[in-house]
Amino acid sequence: MGQKLYSGRFTKDISPITTEITQSISYDRQLYAQDLAVSRAHARMLYEKNILSEKELASILKGLELVEREIEEGKLVFKPELEDIHTHIENRLCELIGEDGKKLHTARSRNDQVAADTHLYLLQEARRQKKDLVALLETILDLAEKHKTDLWIAYTHLQVAQPVLLSHYLLSYFWAFHRDLGLLDYVIKEADRCPLGAAAVGGPNYAIEPELTARLLGFQKTYENSLDAVANRDYQLNYHFFASRLCLHVSRLCEDLIIYNSLEFGYVQMDDEITTGSSIMPQKRNPDLAEILRSRSARASANLLSLMMNLKGLPASYNRDLQEDKIYLFDNIKLTSEVILGTKELLEHTRFLPEKVEINLEKGFAQATDIADYLVSHYGLPFRQAHELTANLVRYCEQQGKTLRKLTLEEIQEVWPQQYQFDKELLDLTQSPRRRGGSMSTHPNEVEKQLEKAKQSLIAHL
Amino acid sequence: MGQKLYSGRFTKDISPITTEITQSISYDRQLYAQDLAVSRAHARMLYEKNILSEKELASILKGLELVEREIEEGKLVFKPELEDIHTHIENRLCELIGEDGKKLHTARSRNDQVAADTHLYLLQEARRQKKDLVALLETILDLAEKHKTDLWIAYTHLQVAQPVLLSHYLLSYFWAFHRDLGLLDYVIKEADRCPLGAAAVGGPNYAIEPELTARLLGFQKTYENSLDAVANRDYQLNYHFFASRLCLHVSRLCEDLIIYNSLEFGYVQMDDEITTGSSIMPQKRNPDLAEILRSRSARASANLLSLMMNLKGLPASYNRDLQEDKIYLFDNIKLTSEVILGTKELLEHTRFLPEKVEINLEKGFAQATDIADYLVSHYGLPFRQAHELTANLVRYCEQQGKTLRKLTLEEIQEVWPQQYQFDKELLDLTQSPRRRGGSMSTHPNEVEKQLEKAKQSLIAHL
Amino acid sequence: MGQKLYSGRFTKDISPITTEITQSISYDRQLYAQDLAVSRAHARMLYEKNILSEKELASILKGLELVEREIEEGKLVFKPELEDIHTHIENRLCELIGEDGKKLHTARSRNDQVAADTHLYLLQEARRQKKDLVALLETILDLAEKHKTDLWIAYTHLQVAQPVLLSHYLLSYFWAFHRDLGLLDYVIKEADRCPLGAAAVGGPNYAIEPELTARLLGFQKTYENSLDAVANRDYQLNYHFFASRLCLHVSRLCEDLIIYNSLEFGYVQMDDEITTGSSIMPQKRNPDLAEILRSRSARASANLLSLMMNLKGLPASYNRDLQEDKIYLFDNIKLTSEVILGTKELLEHTRFLPEKVEINLEKGFAQATDIADYLVSHYGLPFRQAHELTANLVRYCEQQGKTLRKLTLEEIQEVWPQQYQFDKELLDLTQSPRRRGGSMSTHPNEVEKQLEKAKQSLIAHL
Amino acid sequence: MGQKLYSGRFTKDISPITTEITQSISYDRQLYAQDLAVSRAHARMLYEKNILSEKELASILKGLELVEREIEEGKLVFKPELEDIHTHIENRLCELIGEDGKKLHTARSRNDQVAADTHLYLLQEARRQKKDLVALLETILDLAEKHKTDLWIAYTHLQVAQPVLLSHYLLSYFWAFHRDLGLLDYVIKEADRCPLGAAAVGGPNYAIEPELTARLLGFQKTYENSLDAVANRDYQLNYHFFASRLCLHVSRLCEDLIIYNSLEFGYVQMDDEITTGSSIMPQKRNPDLAEILRSRSARASANLLSLMMNLKGLPASYNRDLQEDKIYLFDNIKLTSEVILGTKELLEHTRFLPEKVEINLEKGFAQATDIADYLVSHYGLPFRQAHELTANLVRYCEQQGKTLRKLTLEEIQEVWPQQYQFDKELLDLTQSPRRRGGSMSTHPNEVEKQLEKAKQSLIAHL
Repeated sequence: MGQKLYSGRFTKDISPITTEITQSISYDRQLYAQDLAVSRAHARMLYEKNILSEKELASILKGLELVEREIEEGKLVFKPELEDIHTHIENRLCELIGEDGKKLHTARSRNDQVAADTHLYLLQEARRQKKDLVALLETILDLAEKHKTDLWIAYTHLQVAQPVLLSHYLLSYFWAFHRDLGLLDYVIKEADRCPLGAAAVGGPNYAIEPELTARLLGFQKTYENSLDAVANRDYQLNYHFFASRLCLHVSRLCEDLIIYNSLEFGYVQMDDEITTGSSIMPQKRNPDLAEILRSRSARASANLLSLMMNLKGLPASYNRDLQEDKIYLFDNIKLTSEVILGTKELLEHTRFLPEKVEINLEKGFAQATDIADYLVSHYGLPFRQAHELTANLVRYCEQQGKTLRKLTLEEIQEVWPQQYQFDKELLDLTQSPRRRGGSMSTHPNEVEKQLEKAKQSLIAHL
Repeated sequence: MGQKLYSGRFTKDISPITTEITQSISYDRQLYAQDLAVSRAHARMLYEKNILSEKELASILKGLELVEREIEEGKLVFKPELEDIHTHIENRLCELIGEDGKKLHTARSRNDQVAADTHLYLLQEARRQKKDLVALLETILDLAEKHKTDLWIAYTHLQVAQPVLLSHYLLSYFWAFHRDLGLLDYVIKEADRCPLGAAAVGGPNYAIEPELTARLLGFQKTYENSLDAVANRDYQLNYHFFASRLCLHVSRLCEDLIIYNSLEFGYVQMDDEITTGSSIMPQKRNPDLAEILRSRSARASANLLSLMMNLKGLPASYNRDLQEDKIYLFDNIKLTSEVILGTKELLEHTRFLPEKVEINLEKGFAQATDIADYLVSHYGLPFRQAHELTANLVRYCEQQGKTLRKLTLEEIQEVWPQQYQFDKELLDLTQSPRRRGGSMSTHPNEVEKQLEKAKQSLIAHL
Repeated sequence: MGQKLYSGRFTKDISPITTEITQSISYDRQLYAQDLAVSRAHARMLYEKNILSEKELASILKGLELVEREIEEGKLVFKPELEDIHTHIENRLCELIGEDGKKLHTARSRNDQVAADTHLYLLQEARRQKKDLVALLETILDLAEKHKTDLWIAYTHLQVAQPVLLSHYLLSYFWAFHRDLGLLDYVIKEADRCPLGAAAVGGPNYAIEPELTARLLGFQKTYENSLDAVANRDYQLNYHFFASRLCLHVSRLCEDLIIYNSLEFGYVQMDDEITTGSSIMPQKRNPDLAEILRSRSARASANLLSLMMNLKGLPASYNRDLQEDKIYLFDNIKLTSEVILGTKELLEHTRFLPEKVEINLEKGFAQATDIADYLVSHYGLPFRQAHELTANLVRYCEQQGKTLRKLTLEEIQEVWPQQYQFDKELLDLTQSPRRRGGSMSTHPNEVEKQLEKAKQSLIAHL
Repeated sequence: MGQKLYSGRFTKDISPITTEITQSISYDRQLYAQDLAVSRAHARMLYEKNILSEKELASILKGLELVEREIEEGKLVFKPELEDIHTHIENRLCELIGEDGKKLHTARSRNDQVAADTHLYLLQEARRQKKDLVALLETILDLAEKHKTDLWIAYTHLQVAQPVLLSHYLLSYFWAFHRDLGLLDYVIKEADRCPLGAAAVGGPNYAIEPELTARLLGFQKTYENSLDAVANRDYQLNYHFFASRLCLHVSRLCEDLIIYNSLEFGYVQMDDEITTGSSIMPQKRNPDLAEILRSRSARASANLLSLMMNLKGLPASYNRDLQEDKIYLFDNIKLTSEVILGTKELLEHTRFLPEKVEINLEKGFAQATDIADYLVSHYGLPFRQAHELTANLVRYCEQQGKTLRKLTLEEIQEVWPQQYQFDKELLDLTQSPRRRGGSMSTHPNEVEKQLEKAKQSLIAHL
């Protein structure tokens, strides 16, 4: 090339270091398909509005097809001095079809063009991810169904808290990801508007019809205001927030599974498909997939921050700073796709071992709440007092190194001077969930209903 | 106090430094009204489910009223060793009404209690902020109405780009804040569910009815899953994201106004009500309010980040780490309230001076796009070529130190060897907006419609 | 008050909402002691340079003492309309001593005054924290000394990796915190310069001597440039970075201890002094202190981010945005102090139980690396092949449900067709550290030297 | 390949999606030169310690040379299933030289290997950047020298504050970047230690000598503790902090230049080499380079955050999460290099136009402080009162639409009932800097000394 772009007013070329720093072709080439789609729709609109002739339209559409083929066959050479994908495509178009090509940029600017490309790209990716997210939710449902009545440990503070159903535990993540599905719907709805027609900043000097371009591209709406159309990055912030929130949920699930997968917990076993060995320690089976997935919330949140900080204090409308938005966006879209697919893979290759938890529920005195509540309901004690009595019993067991189930009547009476007593079946952990009440609880009947509700909630998204 | 809380199992008190670090009473006392409301609703539910007697309910309600009065009269002494607001209230209740008070904690835990308090608090604040945000939108509408046909400069890259209507510029911020209003609706909808009934983590050992408690507190829904109910912080992340996005919009508006308020731009004048002087430079009139508002996006985003990083890699359900969530939440709610009110104040006390912009539009060759487009439409030139010709004209003007309007016919013909020419009225800046086309453009008719649309869009929220 | 500050040029008061948003007295009152010190030094310098008379100096010093007493006795009423601590003190000074008080602000501005106050404050706090950090390092050293030869498990990927000495594990955190000590020295060195003398931005109209004021305040240096002196926030960024990095180290240590403190690991026991019970589950002993400490890295990093984002894109020198810097600074200084003290408390109240780890080292096949390396050194096998053979042995054990120590000679020969063999003492875990080599390793002799080196490294800081 | 790495214990291959997510070869291939250097040094050390024979060493060194050539000639095919650069190189080595190649991994692990590679890479890049940063500082010095006595405007709150020398303004950035140079020295010093010899986590089972490997690689020191050596990421955090702080300084400089480059300010002119045109507006000359540079602090800070959030709450030693550290590191190293070079380019192609500022200093009443101080020194007024009187004069001028210089004696006496007066030469802006005092001030003599000090401070780094 050698010639400065849009250079009528300039006498010198841009310097090499400036070219290197300001070019975006090294990353925005990913938008080529969207850029071609946007150009086609724009050309068609111009034709409908009598701004292009039928012949010019045909020539442009033919030329764009040729360019598309060249890109897909890897024949178009990308050069930093041509800055971005828009210029590459348009330049090549002009080389191929001559004067007609130069008419394509009528009534538009790179400002609204790149905005349109990016909206389109984000929408397509978000819709694809929605399908993957629904598939992940189905995987969780299947797992919950499979372990519907199995016993599991609910932790708080990473301390054994109470026996719950494994399905109940699994469903807690279903609802978190289900909220992300709702957020993704918001992301999609907000991105579903076409900025093409804003031109540089104030609208073009032509009687165009943005609604038509929007329709041709499949958008629901246009923007209301040209300044806003080239300035707005909310739709990207929304996506980054979705990515961050989803990845945070994944990070918590992975933390659980990494801990449960330790030798000491041993409550899950991960398949060879998702674990790797050590180059030095022959006995290792490391939960690598879960660890990488856990880490991803860091990058996802950092991409959100990056766009926020970029936008902070920027003057209205378009500033070149905004160009870097695509770096964060492409990174987050790719990593989030991997995270959704990877989490599904993780769950499909992790075997939950409910048979391992009961002994630790015993050791963790997980019946304590049941005993306290029994004292309340049977003897009318205030809960606070029942709590105190039970705690004394637990302390006694600890000192004696025994579980609650091993206590003799004599021991209980020793600790409790009162004539309080309880039936041994109160200590049957498998019965504990049945004592819980209320729709959110881990009572088997409630979990059954919860499972049904979860299934129904997915149908709307299928 | 001196006695450890929930201490049945313990033999020693918590240490002073641990108390200082783990207490939350220094900030969660703000939740006292919500905590009382939650306790009342919980007590009523327990009575309806025959877990409390009528007498016990009456006693508790009476006691809570006494505690409320003591707090509001500043008589309740807050002590770090009582950890949090829940314990302060319950302890005082027991001191006042004795045994009955101890029954209030039946079938609930601090885990679901604090979650319920916080949901309620966030909902109330968010609803209040919604009203303030609508008022801000109305202020912008009024300003746009007032300056409906005034000329203004649209910048890109902080370079004079094109003449637009001032109303068009102002409306661009209307739409940004209007999106925030939509986001706030999402925030409110997602926060509108009651976690009470999850108890510690697996549901309580009582046949409670969470739906009833929710209804009594005015919530639309309950949670589906007890583990999720005590673990979920998405509703807070949502709020922080709203706060961050809104504050980013404000930061851009303030950047504009601070620049426009400089001596060199001089396009706005800020009233004494929102500016301050210097302690050393007697001539200064500093845009302090705008500057502080601009800075706030930093803190808002940091609070979002803080919660994200806190949540990253946390095991499922409740961990004490989550206690600090309220620090970020209270800070963001207060600062966002101030930002919304302050932005309204800023706009009400900033006078836009459209009479100042025309000269700089001239000096900035703001008619250039119009000339290029004229060459396209009149002579059928491809836009790229028209762009080049116009740029040559601009360069000539620059070299001669004159505006486009001062060019003579001879000069134009000197720069343009071709027989291209244009009418002087093309250079009339006040007519420029009328040449724009499409619904997003700054054409007066389109802006009129846009203004109407903006008004309509607010009615739904009134 | 009612009268606008520095208001000569203004006709109207600042509005209430602007006052509320732009005031800093609600937080900068913490700087009162530093502000008084700065004023005293400034007055003394003015006197030395013949700008104040001896009588004026005496009057000012006397007045400042009165103001100090009023503040410390809680008698000075703080009012938002007086904006900041500087104005409160100066106003009160003038009320108390009249005309002389008005001379104190000669040759300075609030811009350099607040910068000087903040440098002083940060320096004092950082020096105090340095002592606390050294005390934390000593605590770790004591623990390492106590457990010098005890066996412990080194994990990678939270999987049992290799036997190490507990002292070696503990010292790994020593070195991390020791690096933080070095960073704190950098923080202190960089903050040790006095900005007083920059005045508003270009230096005052007086022949002052900033070096003298600096000396009186105990600073090592002054700034070189007045614009930089009022604009610079690097010294605060440095502190925030220190706080963030330190808190990240703490978060990793706490993660370890929380996991080791679980029932399933059971490798440490936390004292009652740092754990709390549950309001509903009588058996719980929650590691609350460790959890809160783990969470703090979130807030510390967010405060760093907050200042970075605030500074991003700010014009040169002083802008009012910078006022909010103190909010992040005060928060991080307080939380970091608590984190340092709290981590010491945590370690002093956590008992490590090395007797518990051996069985899991066995179950985790922690001798595997030793076997592989034995095959290399004894039979000259390439490491890769030895790794493979050992892995086969581990797989066999897993299938048979036995540990390596339980393998019979026959079994080994069954898995290894080759005539490879090893002595049973190779499986003695307590001997494993003795097989390690190199100065970084867990070999007891090396750890002994390491401990000595750690002690020496602290002496420099005592 | 088809065969799982380090797979002795496994029966199934890793799944494709796991491979895709956990591979690092797509980015860590950048470390190939460092990985080869580390392997060479390791092999030499093993030979010196009699762990490798002379023949084996020769064979390995020869093989590594072949691999290096293949990589540099683009002949080595990178495959995701071979995970990382270490495995690619070692596998290829074994293919080329057979059994000897398998011995290279003796007494090391990928954990310490990747840490050593990364330390080396960061050190090399940081040292290169140091040179570039010194060159940037020299550019600023040259500019300051060139404009040593030119007048400029110092702003606070983006309001005209006081006349300063342009050299003084420029030097304010010199000191900021000079602090970054000091920080870079800290970064380099802290990264200058070799982790090789930690092996997987506890040190290898060989009598190695880490000090020797360190020396061969040019490191000053080794780590003290093997767990710390594989866990530590402080040296990367340090670099990210340097990058962030530097980019923040650049963002502020760029903000200044973008504003000064506006038509309305017009105080600088940017060359064609660093500006670009608009695709639609022929008159535009956009400060693209400055804008992109301004944006970079966002990405730099986000990379810092990314690593911080990744590290938060990670268990001790190595976890796979840490693998992603290189993504942030590579990105920040590249962008920071560009920022340093780009800022130099920006300054070299920006012409400062001091002749433009005087008129606006007049309009901005920039003599006000001088007048107030004159009243103090001449009439012995307290500064507060002088401030008030001057403010009255400014207000009068504003109302009359005149500058201070245009005031008549009568007008002054009308505003000031007192017999206060001043000489007209007090209003001579070019003399204003001469009235300032103290070493930080803009007094020409002080700036002269400051310039000299700046020069001296660079010599130490040359």
